[in-house]
Amino acid sequence: MTEIRIVVVGPKYEGNVGAIARSMANFGLKELYLVSPCELGDDAYRRAKHGSDILDDVHVVDTLEQAVEGCFLVAGTSGITTQGDRNYSRVPVSVRDFAYSCRGYPDKVAVVFGREDTGLYQNEINMCDVLIHIPTCAEYPVMNLSHAAHTVMYEFFMAEDTPRRPEPADTHEKALLFDFFGDLLDAIEYPNNRREMTTVMFRRMMGRAIPTKYEYNTIMGVFGDASKIIKYGKSWEKKRSRSFTEA
Amino acid sequence: MTEIRIVVVGPKYEGNVGAIARSMANFGLKELYLVSPCELGDDAYRRAKHGSDILDDVHVVDTLEQAVEGCFLVAGTSGITTQGDRNYSRVPVSVRDFAYSCRGYPDKVAVVFGREDTGLYQNEINMCDVLIHIPTCAEYPVMNLSHAAHTVMYEFFMAEDTPRRPEPADTHEKALLFDFFGDLLDAIEYPNNRREMTTVMFRRMMGRAIPTKYEYNTIMGVFGDASKIIKYGKSWEKKRSRSFTEA
Repeated sequence: MTEIRIVVVGPKYEGNVGAIARSMANFGLKELYLVSPCELGDDAYRRAKHGSDILDDVHVVDTLEQAVEGCFLVAGTSGITTQGDRNYSRVPVSVRDFAYSCRGYPDKVAVVFGREDTGLYQNEINMCDVLIHIPTCAEYPVMNLSHAAHTVMYEFFMAEDTPRRPEPADTHEKALLFDFFGDLLDAIEYPNNRREMTTVMFRRMMGRAIPTKYEYNTIMGVFGDASKIIKYGKSWEKKRSRSFTEA
Repeated sequence: MTEIRIVVVGPKYEGNVGAIARSMANFGLKELYLVSPCELGDDAYRRAKHGSDILDDVHVVDTLEQAVEGCFLVAGTSGITTQGDRNYSRVPVSVRDFAYSCRGYPDKVAVVFGREDTGLYQNEINMCDVLIHIPTCAEYPVMNLSHAAHTVMYEFFMAEDTPRRPEPADTHEKALLFDFFGDLLDAIEYPNNRREMTTVMFRRMMGRAIPTKYEYNTIMGVFGDASKIIKYGKSWEKKRSRSFTEA
């Protein structure tokens, strides 16, 4: 089963944290990270029931960066999404589609939930590879935090019984791909005012496509060649017999 | 959409009833029947949030018979199920399968939840047409009542409705993107023997990512700039104020 880490940023009600721990026990998850949470006391443990050992082992950290360290994919969640595609960072994937596309990941996936009242801030959403979304009726999309978390875990649990995909790229390859894309933007002197948006957008597209190792390497080769030819001219091409990732 | 009535038999914690009302509002359900419930006070309303009008209109009755009157199908829920087929009354259907099979029902379906501690009694289960079940890990199948109810409503909602995404790129835009990718391969003098494979692979990745119009245009801009700079040199950059698709 894909390993899932649950991350909650700034939870305000310990009861919600307890309920999330219980849901984790229902769906066989173990790792809970909290970023600057409220205190966890009796109410959290009362609601955690058989998930109390998850609360005992909870990781409390100061920043979202610390909370997702070591995870291959970071999936943010938001009740507020957009149908307009200009606000690229809030174009969502349904949790069901995302859970299915994650099957067989060899590395850990972090699913990040925001505060009960204000959710995740824009800079936090920008750190995510993908934004996942739980379909609801349009009139009232905002769920209780623990119910949203329960639904996400349920979908991951349901998705596991289905056939596996070819081996996806690992964390190192993924980081390299984004570096190569950045190099390409440098090489073409991409306008600074659009750069962050385009980078996040590319991240989102790759987050949805979940490339295999082979796909990552191939696309990296194309970006790498383009950047180097722009930078060093066609003479660089002579060296192309070397592998892309070494280049 | 199939009309669903939510029935809760003997709820002991008003907070759970409030949370169920909130989930009903999330998924567009209206009819809540309670059989011999606890009193509903502040805590129920506090947790119901935008579902408070569902609490205002709640039907309180004395028996399960009264609660399911007028419903075409009655679905019970239980955390305790069996794989042996001797105890026929507890052989369950997964909530996903059940929700899909209910699509388009012209008559009302009642979904019945039991008490927080003891669930539905055997005679109550026997009154149901079907027993539905939420898959969990075997070690700890018992969920909080409101989380179980949330998951059931979510599955009914999902079975009826599929989420809308921002408008995807159309055929013309898609064809243009592949042309631009081809131009980039030309510009970098990509090896002929790998070209077809790389092109198909790129197509596949885009097929999985299903980019929006905006994403297509942005990524096309990056590819287009890279190809043109390689082909015509940096002097081409001066013209970049023109839109990508016209370039």
